Amino acid sequence: MIEPISGFSKLQKQEKISWLAQTYLKDFPEASNILEQYWNPKEKLQQLHEEFTENTISNYYLPFGIAPNFLINGERYAIPMAIEESSVIAAASKAAKFWGENGGFQAKVINTQKIGQVHFIFEGNPEKLRRFFDQVKSTLLSSVSHLTKNMEKRGGGILDIELKDKSEALKNYFQLHCTFETKDSMGANFINTCLEKFAETLKSEASKYTEFAPEEKDLEIVMSILSNYVPECLVRAEVSCPIENLNSPEMSGAAFAEKFVRAIKIAEIEKYRAVTHNKGIMNGIDAVVLATGNDFRAIEAGIHAYASKDGNYTSLTHASVENGIFKFWMEIPLALGTVGGLTSLHPLSKVALEILQKPSAQDLMKIVAVAGLAQNYAAVKSLITTGIQQGHMKMHLMNILNQMNASREEKAALVAHFKTNTVTHRAVEEALQNLRNS
Amino acid sequence: MIEPISGFSKLQKQEKISWLAQTYLKDFPEASNILEQYWNPKEKLQQLHEEFTENTISNYYLPFGIAPNFLINGERYAIPMAIEESSVIAAASKAAKFWGENGGFQAKVINTQKIGQVHFIFEGNPEKLRRFFDQVKSTLLSSVSHLTKNMEKRGGGILDIELKDKSEALKNYFQLHCTFETKDSMGANFINTCLEKFAETLKSEASKYTEFAPEEKDLEIVMSILSNYVPECLVRAEVSCPIENLNSPEMSGAAFAEKFVRAIKIAEIEKYRAVTHNKGIMNGIDAVVLATGNDFRAIEAGIHAYASKDGNYTSLTHASVENGIFKFWMEIPLALGTVGGLTSLHPLSKVALEILQKPSAQDLMKIVAVAGLAQNYAAVKSLITTGIQQGHMKMHLMNILNQMNASREEKAALVAHFKTNTVTHRAVEEALQNLRNS
Repeated sequence: MIEPISGFSKLQKQEKISWLAQTYLKDFPEASNILEQYWNPKEKLQQLHEEFTENTISNYYLPFGIAPNFLINGERYAIPMAIEESSVIAAASKAAKFWGENGGFQAKVINTQKIGQVHFIFEGNPEKLRRFFDQVKSTLLSSVSHLTKNMEKRGGGILDIELKDKSEALKNYFQLHCTFETKDSMGANFINTCLEKFAETLKSEASKYTEFAPEEKDLEIVMSILSNYVPECLVRAEVSCPIENLNSPEMSGAAFAEKFVRAIKIAEIEKYRAVTHNKGIMNGIDAVVLATGNDFRAIEAGIHAYASKDGNYTSLTHASVENGIFKFWMEIPLALGTVGGLTSLHPLSKVALEILQKPSAQDLMKIVAVAGLAQNYAAVKSLITTGIQQGHMKMHLMNILNQMNASREEKAALVAHFKTNTVTHRAVEEALQNLRNS
Repeated sequence: MIEPISGFSKLQKQEKISWLAQTYLKDFPEASNILEQYWNPKEKLQQLHEEFTENTISNYYLPFGIAPNFLINGERYAIPMAIEESSVIAAASKAAKFWGENGGFQAKVINTQKIGQVHFIFEGNPEKLRRFFDQVKSTLLSSVSHLTKNMEKRGGGILDIELKDKSEALKNYFQLHCTFETKDSMGANFINTCLEKFAETLKSEASKYTEFAPEEKDLEIVMSILSNYVPECLVRAEVSCPIENLNSPEMSGAAFAEKFVRAIKIAEIEKYRAVTHNKGIMNGIDAVVLATGNDFRAIEAGIHAYASKDGNYTSLTHASVENGIFKFWMEIPLALGTVGGLTSLHPLSKVALEILQKPSAQDLMKIVAVAGLAQNYAAVKSLITTGIQQGHMKMHLMNILNQMNASREEKAALVAHFKTNTVTHRAVEEALQNLRNS
């Protein structure tokens, strides 16, 4: 068995790679060169990226692309996307083009509250705790005034602290349930720092509260942390048009709209479909979230939990036809930042935000939601017309050809060939073989 | 208003950037250089990455790092992670070290079935449909035999096709609910290609079925697509040790274990906590999923939907103390591939899989689940002891210093300073100002 290594994090990047090469990569000697070929030639830039996190040995590339022609609330955007999956940017661009010619996307922010909690155990009289809380609330707030000063200048801060009795679900369990407005920052560090201070103050005030019995004074903090569940930080995106605008040579607009609405209904009632349906929405959302330096794990967790908020996991998008008007919309929670974190630290995120015309966090919520809605429109449209594989495999054709080391000439010949033939991995393999043998 | 652009996708990369520069980046002339500084100097390699998707203009860097010392089922792994969030790799490494000295991680694959569905509308007698299905099932299977040949050689294929009547939830709605075994490939293309063929066969066979009335013959396919909800593609990861192994100078092992189990209980009963708790798990999971060329949106959707499978969104991990033994475990669905897709196409994913000793899809399921469990252990440990901010802000210190263009000497001085002082953005700003004015 391979021995554990100590002090790995203190090794230089090149030493880390050497250790990997000797320990795990003896059969793959080219690994060191592959890792190094992704280093940026500019040493300072490379160092910047390495210091984002720990034990960095290379840079993992995601394609950074552009989906142009998004018309959102009357403004035209080109949306930067970082995504490795073929056809996502193509699909978004197609949906943007169609809706750009049909009234554009409407988006609005419904609310922007974020949540953080201090979880604690109190063994005693809940009524006394309530009185203690009412008395100590202002002290809690003033204990963080040095932390909130900057945020308040920007119009944000702490909106409220509530005491929640959760002791029916878990013995002696209570919370400080805190709501925050963090303006253009995502606010995780701000919220967590405030919460830890609340916890400290709560504990020390409890220990001094004369009406508490000794065991009540010994209130125990379990943990203090923001929530990525943000159902009160909500944005809505929508498109609509007369059904005849949906006419195509293959199908009447009315038939298309009926099929579309039915596909959405299926995603509303069938979990196996809803999960994949929402996954497609996240293709668009995460691509923008990543490109703008936001945290896609936080966004994913918040949105999927929201999709199950009423007990059944269900579709995030909805569609209707009323009085000849087709409507397609979505409401999702999105806690995003356009200042702080990686947003200004990662040079490409900074470029992404510049391309988006220096959006506020609320602007970015609208743009990201629209990217998700556009993605879902394109996916559902494919599914109910040509099927998903035709477009997807065409996009994937180039990947397969690269994998088989096709030359530029071979690629051109096979792209032409597969304009009228079905792409499968096997079919491409055979066609390339035939070409090479011809 | 900015005019829409047509033919954007046909422009050369440099032309796309020029259009962006003229249209959106007039105030930020350095953007073109920033985008270009991320191009790989090797033209062929750059081209490979551009062709992963559409409209690529640059490469978005995620740090590619290593968390060493994972002991999983008696084997020692160094786990590659692609992640931009500071402290994730450090936390994983710390958890790996501790559990490596305490019996290691145990992981096992529970099952590996994947799901795909043909959704269709049938206006007629469900009993007749059932008889039709029983008769046509073998034709459905044989209609894809040319597609399944390769997969069957590898031990996979189609496990079953069931007819499901969903007409109570939506009028006339039925499904072919299909189960697949896709071995080492994630299988999305295979499953979707099979499903579309099933749909075609189903429709044409129905039109010929003599017992159907005319409207029954006109069965309507809505869509055919795999599901990212994979509760039958499940892996379990676990650690356990005697509670005295958890002793630390600050706390007895028994007290730590009690606090830990309570923190997990809170995540089990409180949605606002559960979402963030699971988000932390996904920090570890997505980092490996990305590094190995898998699709993190699919994994996120499947796992979060699974977290709400019983109606309440809840913690994915669980913990107990019994007979002096602390146990911490998780069961999650993970549909991963180690062949196909980007896994062998992205040179760094290939390196990642080599570092992991060429895992099968089942091996990778275990490794990814362990990375998630380790991440959650480290996060919960921080939360119930020092708090999350201390570690997080220390890791983030270097980011803040880079943002302020601190020199190498200034960095060294401030890292020393913040060994004993609380890191906040403001405190770093002030300390750097003081240093520069001193």
